[in-house]
Amino acid sequence: MTLSPIFEPPYYAVIFTSLRHEGDHGYGAMAEEMEKLGSAQPGYLGIDSARSEVGITVSYWQNLADIHAWKAQLEHQQAQRLGKEQWYASYTVRVAKVEYNYEFGR
Amino acid sequence: MTLSPIFEPPYYAVIFTSLRHEGDHGYGAMAEEMEKLGSAQPGYLGIDSARSEVGITVSYWQNLADIHAWKAQLEHQQAQRLGKEQWYASYTVRVAKVEYNYEFGR
Repeated sequence: MTLSPIFEPPYYAVIFTSLRHEGDHGYGAMAEEMEKLGSAQPGYLGIDSARSEVGITVSYWQNLADIHAWKAQLEHQQAQRLGKEQWYASYTVRVAKVEYNYEFGR
Repeated sequence: MTLSPIFEPPYYAVIFTSLRHEGDHGYGAMAEEMEKLGSAQPGYLGIDSARSEVGITVSYWQNLADIHAWKAQLEHQQAQRLGKEQWYASYTVRVAKVEYNYEFGR
């Protein structure tokens, strides 16, 4: 397991936090598929993900247009619909421009 | 367990990702203390936190000056030093300006 590297700002972070319903209901397979598809999108830089009671996924992107293109991608649209219908009790999405970053021990 | 609410942009997110060494070594108690102290700082808006293999904590702040004041706070400085010496194998910090946000099911 590794952390995403930092990048030269400015770039963008999409901060996705969620609370899931009990049970998998196809979530794990879809999450894996979306991570594969997302990482192949133009402008994708990296991702960090953790889940305990709350799930947090932060993906990093070159610019806003790349984020909008991924949000509109067909399979991702279907996954977003299933997410609302089946997997997530609640979620938040924040799109933020990284102004500076630093790291330790990488 | 709840998610932090979203806020009226612009505001700031501090995205902290980490890989820990094995064992607690006082980490849990310190993390709890820092969450208490941080949430009492001027400009603090909220926090989301999750840990599986990777740990991700995202805290939300009114502006950059509030973030810098918390980074410079005395007990927090001591915690940061212990973090490098004892708890974290590696970490990244990204400071990002939230441009827009939305939510589902909250």
